Amino acid sequence: MSDVIGGETTLADLPLREDLRGRSPYGAPQLDVPVLLNTNENPFPPPEQLVDDIVATVGETAAGLNRYPDRDAVSLREDLAAYLAGATGVSVSSDNVWAANGSNEILQQLLQAFGGPGRTALGFEPSYSMHPVLAAGTRTDWLPEPRRSDFTLDGAEAARAVTERRPDVVFVTSPNNPTGQSIDPEDLRALLRAAPGLVVVDEAYVEFSPRHSAISLLAEFPGKLVVSRTMSKAFAFAGGRLGYLAASPAVIEALLLVRLPYHLSTVTQAAARAALRHADATLGGVKQLVDERARVTGGLRELGFTPVDSDANFVLFGMFDDAHRAWQRYLDSGVLIRDVGIDGHLRVTIGSPRDNDAFLAASERVREELSR
Amino acid sequence: MSDVIGGETTLADLPLREDLRGRSPYGAPQLDVPVLLNTNENPFPPPEQLVDDIVATVGETAAGLNRYPDRDAVSLREDLAAYLAGATGVSVSSDNVWAANGSNEILQQLLQAFGGPGRTALGFEPSYSMHPVLAAGTRTDWLPEPRRSDFTLDGAEAARAVTERRPDVVFVTSPNNPTGQSIDPEDLRALLRAAPGLVVVDEAYVEFSPRHSAISLLAEFPGKLVVSRTMSKAFAFAGGRLGYLAASPAVIEALLLVRLPYHLSTVTQAAARAALRHADATLGGVKQLVDERARVTGGLRELGFTPVDSDANFVLFGMFDDAHRAWQRYLDSGVLIRDVGIDGHLRVTIGSPRDNDAFLAASERVREELSR
Repeated sequence: MSDVIGGETTLADLPLREDLRGRSPYGAPQLDVPVLLNTNENPFPPPEQLVDDIVATVGETAAGLNRYPDRDAVSLREDLAAYLAGATGVSVSSDNVWAANGSNEILQQLLQAFGGPGRTALGFEPSYSMHPVLAAGTRTDWLPEPRRSDFTLDGAEAARAVTERRPDVVFVTSPNNPTGQSIDPEDLRALLRAAPGLVVVDEAYVEFSPRHSAISLLAEFPGKLVVSRTMSKAFAFAGGRLGYLAASPAVIEALLLVRLPYHLSTVTQAAARAALRHADATLGGVKQLVDERARVTGGLRELGFTPVDSDANFVLFGMFDDAHRAWQRYLDSGVLIRDVGIDGHLRVTIGSPRDNDAFLAASERVREELSR
Repeated sequence: MSDVIGGETTLADLPLREDLRGRSPYGAPQLDVPVLLNTNENPFPPPEQLVDDIVATVGETAAGLNRYPDRDAVSLREDLAAYLAGATGVSVSSDNVWAANGSNEILQQLLQAFGGPGRTALGFEPSYSMHPVLAAGTRTDWLPEPRRSDFTLDGAEAARAVTERRPDVVFVTSPNNPTGQSIDPEDLRALLRAAPGLVVVDEAYVEFSPRHSAISLLAEFPGKLVVSRTMSKAFAFAGGRLGYLAASPAVIEALLLVRLPYHLSTVTQAAARAALRHADATLGGVKQLVDERARVTGGLRELGFTPVDSDANFVLFGMFDDAHRAWQRYLDSGVLIRDVGIDGHLRVTIGSPRDNDAFLAASERVREELSR
């Protein structure tokens, strides 16, 4: 980079924090491949009437872009509350809801307010790999606890670990990414009883699950429970970046102390509200993905793989002697899936029927090659 | 809030970090007042052809919102680099540029990578009040150093303070918010020589200034200098939330370790690129605001106030026995300005000619009332 200004300066020359030295940036490779099944995106593009509504809404708001957005995103939070109330049957209000640029920012704000230096956060691994990254980014000590070897959560063992280690924040991902299993409601209740601090239930994939949302426990555990959500998956709005949470109003008061002022752009607020107006149309695709999940899981099983039963829009499957080599074989077949770093396993997102056909065809080739 | 779920739980019931207890959320009141001159917004709405272009661009990208955005915002960074190169004459490339949701997120990422627990950040006060807030949010110890009583920066004294206190990050706001003055280039050079770590020159208001950008010093201090910018002010894009920086590529490598993945939405990237395409039209309003600044400053002086000469789109002025009471008098006249907490002073944003007429008329009434 010697032709670039300052290109001769390297990261090693900079006074980077010691704890960041030697790390690699988070993130799956963004490759140009025909079949993209690596980041749990929704394969169905927003319906045409939603696109039209977004365009109209942005047109109305664009003339006011010289002004700062509503700092507290009140209208958007009202719409999110109405969606949650409809989806869960719990009478959530806008005072129970907070929104940010993706659920990662939601979780970061929670750790800034309730974690941080001298505090701890605990999670049950393997789980969403951003949880420890966000803990590190906020200097919260990360306490990993194991799941069972079949990736299910041992409720009694989890509650025991929380009682013993007394973390300030507990993360429970349900359905769990990258394994797909949900927490049992009684296990969650036991965890909430055991937890001395916050319990954040990360429900990024909950719309794909037959289980009830943890939001139904909010009235019972108002000082402990936070349920985080995203519009990236079921809402097919990954590019719009909208994460949110449900909690008691006091939790949101706390987040106001750490959020960046005007963190959510006028355009993001308007586009997300448009997406919520078309929730029925968008969420209509969820049923099809759930059906496709059964087909992909069955197909993998027929081919002799061992898929993990999933409540989400992805399936973890094995067994591979060399998962990374298998990942490369899929890529060579034009199918990008995810090596999540679990020994012998890979994770595939449930795509469109065509994507899934391509994936299953590639799986057959990989299977043949491996048994050769 | 007893009718809201969890409404009986208060902030005091939650395990909030001790250092956040008793704090108030950052931010000026968002009030519905005819003349808004309190947050240094650009009074001119985006030109019609820009609004059309944003709408067209969002229409093109909305159909792909089910996919995550470009994590590294490469096209947007190329466009920002081209703008900076044109505006400064320095051959900045996309490898020198990074973007985020407002310059607050840029500054937060810098402190996450180069500040944090056990590290310090120094600023010359009064200055942008978010700098210490962001330091607190990242648990970076804040070292305030004073400006002269006329709010100018004493270059020799500043370099001495940096040499003595050895901060990991130095913030220099130029033009300075809320006082309006720019740093002298030789003073900045001395500061850069003295600094053991990063020097972040916050140029949020630089387009309103006759001075050269600090970007011209990038080649000389590649391991130290970071220049942060925003599209909120001159670009009239406060609602779009787009902050950026120019630095050596290694600084951006460092930020990749702490940024939230997919932090910038597809829509934000597209809308900002549209705004950059219309930079000439938008920045055309800057000249008028600079002329209005002279008129407002002169008007205040004629009325017997003591405005501080400003290189930005706002003017700090006094003297008031009770600045907060005077602020309320302006508000009663339908003009919202800012009490920035500087004894005897208030800050007014330069608005449209009509806004400024209203402000000067209100100033006359306030003046009369005060001398009664």
